[in-house]
Formats: sequence, C-alpha cells, structure tokens
Amino acid sequence: MTVAVALCLFALTAHAQDADRLVANALTKPTAYETLSWLTDEIGPRPSGSANAALAVEWATQQYRSWGIDVRTEKVVVPHWVRGDERGSLVSHHDQKIVLTALGGSIATTPAGITADVIEVSSYDELKQLGTKVRGKIVYYNNAMDLDLVKAHRAFEAYSRAVIYRATGASRAAEYGAVAAVIRSVASASLRTPHTGAMRYDPKQPKIPAAAMTTEDADLVHRLLARGDRVRMHLVLTPKLLPDVESANVVAEIRGSEKPDEIVLIGGHLDSWDLGTGAIDDGSGVAMVMDAMRLIKESGLRPKRTIRAVLFMNEENGLNGGRAYFAAHRNEKHVAAIETDAGAAAPTGFTTTLKGDALDALIARTNVLDRLGAHKFESAGETGADTSFLIENGVAGFSLVPEPLRYFDYHHTPADTLDKVDAKELQQDTAAILALAWVVAN
Amino acid sequence: MTVAVALCLFALTAHAQDADRLVANALTKPTAYETLSWLTDEIGPRPSGSANAALAVEWATQQYRSWGIDVRTEKVVVPHWVRGDERGSLVSHHDQKIVLTALGGSIATTPAGITADVIEVSSYDELKQLGTKVRGKIVYYNNAMDLDLVKAHRAFEAYSRAVIYRATGASRAAEYGAVAAVIRSVASASLRTPHTGAMRYDPKQPKIPAAAMTTEDADLVHRLLARGDRVRMHLVLTPKLLPDVESANVVAEIRGSEKPDEIVLIGGHLDSWDLGTGAIDDGSGVAMVMDAMRLIKESGLRPKRTIRAVLFMNEENGLNGGRAYFAAHRNEKHVAAIETDAGAAAPTGFTTTLKGDALDALIARTNVLDRLGAHKFESAGETGADTSFLIENGVAGFSLVPEPLRYFDYHHTPADTLDKVDAKELQQDTAAILALAWVVAN
Repeated sequence: MTVAVALCLFALTAHAQDADRLVANALTKPTAYETLSWLTDEIGPRPSGSANAALAVEWATQQYRSWGIDVRTEKVVVPHWVRGDERGSLVSHHDQKIVLTALGGSIATTPAGITADVIEVSSYDELKQLGTKVRGKIVYYNNAMDLDLVKAHRAFEAYSRAVIYRATGASRAAEYGAVAAVIRSVASASLRTPHTGAMRYDPKQPKIPAAAMTTEDADLVHRLLARGDRVRMHLVLTPKLLPDVESANVVAEIRGSEKPDEIVLIGGHLDSWDLGTGAIDDGSGVAMVMDAMRLIKESGLRPKRTIRAVLFMNEENGLNGGRAYFAAHRNEKHVAAIETDAGAAAPTGFTTTLKGDALDALIARTNVLDRLGAHKFESAGETGADTSFLIENGVAGFSLVPEPLRYFDYHHTPADTLDKVDAKELQQDTAAILALAWVVAN
Repeated sequence: MTVAVALCLFALTAHAQDADRLVANALTKPTAYETLSWLTDEIGPRPSGSANAALAVEWATQQYRSWGIDVRTEKVVVPHWVRGDERGSLVSHHDQKIVLTALGGSIATTPAGITADVIEVSSYDELKQLGTKVRGKIVYYNNAMDLDLVKAHRAFEAYSRAVIYRATGASRAAEYGAVAAVIRSVASASLRTPHTGAMRYDPKQPKIPAAAMTTEDADLVHRLLARGDRVRMHLVLTPKLLPDVESANVVAEIRGSEKPDEIVLIGGHLDSWDLGTGAIDDGSGVAMVMDAMRLIKESGLRPKRTIRAVLFMNEENGLNGGRAYFAAHRNEKHVAAIETDAGAAAPTGFTTTLKGDALDALIARTNVLDRLGAHKFESAGETGADTSFLIENGVAGFSLVPEPLRYFDYHHTPADTLDKVDAKELQQDTAAILALAWVVAN
C-alpha cells in the first residue's frame, strides 16, 4: 500500500465517520420540526409578494445569524397575486353550492360573477372535437389523478399527468370561446378539499377565469351531465394581480476548507400557497435545509467544498427565485444541486440526473443513507423546479424523495398544515439531505 | 302434531320464505342509491325551513305516489336558522386564517365581528376553576374524539363524549362572562374540515356566538397557547334565525292484512345540515326507508301488521318532526320503531331497547339478517332521536348500525356527499331494515 493510497483511504474513512456522526447527531432531537413549527404557526401562509413572505425572509435570515452561519438575501422580484372571494353554485340545481378555489394567477370574473352552461371534457382532443360548441360556456376538465399509480408510490407521475389541465386548460378552452375553465382538483383524497396551484395564460388567447372544484363537486357535475341535465354554473372569482414586489432568496453558506469555490447547493422554497400554512410544501424543505446547516455548523466540521443553502422565493407561481439565483450565480462552479420539495414523509432516497458509472460511484460512497432507509437513487430527467436552471446547464441534480403516498392529499390545500408532518420523519429527511450534501462536498 | 301447531309452523315458514324473497329482491339492484342520488344531487342540502327542505317533502311524496304507496304529509313547524358569513383569524399571529363554521342555532357576532383573547379548557371542571378569568374572552373547548374508541368501532360512544361541549359549551362559558365559544370539531378525520351541529342556549344565560374550528386550527391554537403566546382571535359569524316555517313529516304506509292498527314504524330524517348534501346524514336513511317500502309494494306481499315509513323533518336542530309525530300518533299501537340515522356503510346489526327473553325470541326469528352480516343485536337505552318520544313511552326501539368507522369523518361537514356512499352497502342496509320490519310486522 502506498502512502498516497493509505492517506486516501484514511481520508475516505474519516469523512465516512464524519457523515455517520452528523447523521447520528441529526437524529437526536426534532429540531427541524421546531423550525417548521415556527414558520407555519407563527408566520403561517406566505404566498409570493405577501407581508408574510417578507416576514419569512427576515425570520430565516435571523435564524441563520443566530446560529453563526453566513447568510445574505438576494433580490428577487415576484408577482403579487391575491385571492379574493371565490364562490360557485349550480343555478340549474336549486343554487346548490360548488366548493372551488381560484387557480393561482387567474383573472377575476366580474364582481357579480358569470353564469354559463358547463360542458365537460377529459382531454384536449375532446376539447378540439367540440370546437366552437364550447363558445360561451364554462369548460370543465374532468381529469382525475390515477389513484392506482398513487398506491404504487408513483404519485408524482400521476400528478404530472393530471396537472396539465390546471396549467394550460384555461387558454386552451379560451381558444374556442369558453368564458371560464374549471378543473377537477388534482387530489389523492378529499373532504370537499379544493387544490389550488399555478396556471399560466397563453398570450395569444383571451384570458378567462380558472378555478378548481373539489373532487366531490367534480363528481357531482359529472353525474348531473351524465344524467342528461343541463348544468348552469354561477362563478364568482375576485382575485387581483397587484404590482410586482421586491422579495428575496435567502442564501446561507458554510465555506469549503479546500475547494471553497466549488459549491454543493441544498435548497427548498420559502414561499407557499395561501390556503394552508405550507407545512409540507415547502416549509418542510426549508426546515430540512436550515437544520442541516445548523447541524454542520454545530458539529464544528468543515466540508472541503462550500455547502450553500438556498431558500428560494416564488417557486409556486413564477420560479423567479430560481431564475434570479441562476442569473446571479451561473458562472460559479456548482458540483451538485440538491432540492427538497416533495413533503416530509419518511425518506426513501433521491432522484438524480446522474447515470451509469457516476451514479454507481456515488452510491458506493453513500452507505450512510442506508440507516435512514434513503439509499434508493433513481435517474430522472428533472430533479426540481428551482434548481432546474442549473440542471439544464449541466449541474448534477438531486431531489429528496419522501414516501409520496399521501402528499397529494394535502398539496396546495387548506389542509397543508403542521399536523401532517411527523417530527421523526422530518428529522430523517434532514439527515438524508445533510448526509448527501456532506458526501458530495467531500 | 296438532293442526294448530302445523299451521303455525307453516305460517312461520311462509313468512321466513317471504323475508328471504324480499331480501333477495332488495339486493338485485342499487335502487336505494338511485333514490339517494336524486335527493342529494338534484335537491342537495335541505336544512329545516329551507326551500330545499320543502322540495324534498314534495319529491318524497311524489315518489311514494308513483310507486302506488299511500302517503300523506303531516304538519311540522320548524325553526329556520340560516348560515351567514363565517370567518376567523388570529390577529395576534399576522391575521392567520382560522377555518371554522357556526354551530347550528348560534347567534351572530356584530357584522364587523368580535376580537378577544382565547382561553383554552378541556372540561367544564376546568372552566369552573378558571371562573371569571374567562370574562371578556373566547372560550376554546379542546375536546378531541377518542380515536382509539373510533378504531374499536365505538365511534358513537366517542362522539357522545365529545359532543357535550358543542351542545352546551356556549352557555356554560357565558355563565362566566365569555364573549364567544369555539369548539374543536367533533371529527375522526380532517382535511381542514369544519363540523357543524346543533347547540342550544340555556335560557338563564346570556347568548354568545358559537363556532367549531377544524381539528387543524384547534391544534394550532393549542400549540400557540402551550408555547405561551397570547392568542387573540377575530371572529365573524352572521347567521340569522328567521321566523318559523311550516314544514312536514312524510308518512307512507302499507296497511297490515290482519292487524292494521298495529304499526311497525321505520324512519329516517329528511332534513340535513347545510354544509354538505346530507348523503350519509340522513339521505341514506331516507333512501333505505323509501326503497324498503317500494320493495314491499312491488313484491305484492302484505304484512300482517301495518308498516309505516316516516321521513322526519327537523331532526338536526329541534326534533320537531319526532315531537309532532308523537303528538299526533301517541294513542296508536306501535309495535316497534326502527330508526336509521347512522350512515350507509355495510350493516352490522341493530341496537335495540329489547332485552332478555324478548330479544332472544326476536334473534331466533331473524336469521334472514345473517346473510347480510346484520345479525348482531345489542341492547341500548336509546335507539334514535326522532323515535325517542315513542321509545320513552314503551315502544320497542331499534336502530340500524352500519359499520361506524368513518362516519365521523364526514358527519355534519361539507364532505357529507354522495360519493361517500357505496351503492351495494346501502342496498344491504335497505335489506336489513326491510327484513327486520317484515319479521316484526308478521
């Protein structure tokens, strides 16, 4: 054995021991949960542009400072969309109430609302076939999540398929003269629970209001139409798009001892939707990232490369935080970008843009994830929204994969609250992020 | 064997065969679900005094007539309480939204609402100890359903224990000078789902507004108070109590062939709360009772005793239907009163006021319930609200017991909708009601 090899093995062993120690420490106390609890209970919902989002920036910055971690805010200009009244009823059926919520970014109806016949489609093909028959009507996209996929632990795949109509359904319907679009909430469970989420307008089409009905209401409208009833809906949505607001990403870092210019990024997003308190989306990610940094700092260990924690602003309705970060830091050398924005259930592993030998080499060096049940790496084309700009430019991407079974029961709903998070599982997630970042940084 | 005994055995056998045939017929098609579907989808919520409640009376009457069944309406004067705005927020915590609903019968706050400190109690003993410390405050009753009891299939027991604070908490708090009362929703599951329900004022105390928070919001307020925070809540409730309305019970009957003056009553309630469409509470009971009558009529069989189906009005907030029925019919001979108001999950059996030999004799004659999994009889002091006036006067009472595990996930919430009902299970319930009524009537 040469001296060089011996030193190398020693270094590997030492780093493995450090990772073990960091993980062991991470699991001793529910500190991430305490952080999450403050964010969700004391601040609450924090949609982009809101006073609460500004409070969250200030609070996160102060927390890092109190832990002795270098931190700065970096300017992000964000949209400021504010929910208003939202009411639906079936005037054709004794004014029966329809529970719905405006999609993020939707324009308003008139204050008195609109009333129109509802026409149901389940695909863009069907919409195209109907063509101008939808003119003057409310187009209802009845696209359920595939619950078999959810049960097969592939909830994000089921989400991706259904969410298309939320994102682009309004403009597609407007193309044929529809006066509004309503979707079936993209949900894996419901107690008359509406799911909001971002939509975007095609600049070539007229803008029409867009909302999501609960699955119960979606089923009701479907049954009535299937029975041959004429269904007329009254819809009132009064959201407002206020002037853009100057907000910020919160960027903290622990400088590398040997290669400080090489960066391992860990990130989640600080903004949330407005209906719940954003505990799973993405308060949990914020708490994991912040607590991972605190744990490293507290350990006294220094990584070889810089570990940088980014709390992105405006993931939900614009990605302006991810875009601003990329614009400011694209010329720095990012070794990896590890994003966590998939809830706080027990960790199962990571998706990654790595493949083949590079992935195998990493897997061989991350046995520390075994004890967390988080050692499953799956290659994927995308590993997160905020870091997508880095990934598209060749940075190795990773995304934490907590067990996804119940994520879409709560996602983008009023029920996204602290009680949905298990403190122990959140701490395991934190340890998984910490362990992966540590290994990659060394 | 004497001729009399032989005839008697023949008669028993014939009736057993009839019961078997009725049950077999009942299970062939999901007809009760079709009835329920119309009631909940086409009419929807039907709180006492509402236009929809009047529509439901009219519709049920017409349905019976279309089946060739004798039917009449019997006058019931009911309260007409109408929900208004209902909003809560924590002004002490960045105006964080609290999801809540007014309890049925609550008075309003001023239109602008009230703002006061929240003080938490978990029992009337604790309230008493606090005494005048609650003056000027909002008293928060944090009394969770015992979920272990729910899991042990004793959900109604868990409900009974927790619901006390909903029923009488406002007046008890008012006695010590509270300005409002909020309870934790009486719930076995929640996706930020508020549970309403009746409350009543003690005429000796000042009336104060009363609402139910979702379990998520109840947990939030509890955590904040436990942390030592001062919690100030803004509460807006604008319900109105309008003048009483003349409504009706719907009474249908199939006259007995031998003892027409002896009555076997089967009943559910036609009114519902306003938040959902009252599918499980008690549209299902209505559908079972109506479909049982239709099935008997269609069979061409005549029971020896009269089977009378009563769709009671105003079970939820007054019991005026039950009271009016009793006042009008107390001098008739009721052999049994079979109530169904516990949801539409698969039947397990009945509670009954019968005991000892009388119960044993009935059990021996109801083997037809075996095939429905509904042959468990349990003695109980109470077997239903609408029929309680009859039971208190010595009539044998029965209450259908569907599996109760999920009942309080939906009860009194916006999520009490048709999709929570399984058509096959509802038909089994219908068959169970039909079979028991048939056996008792013969």
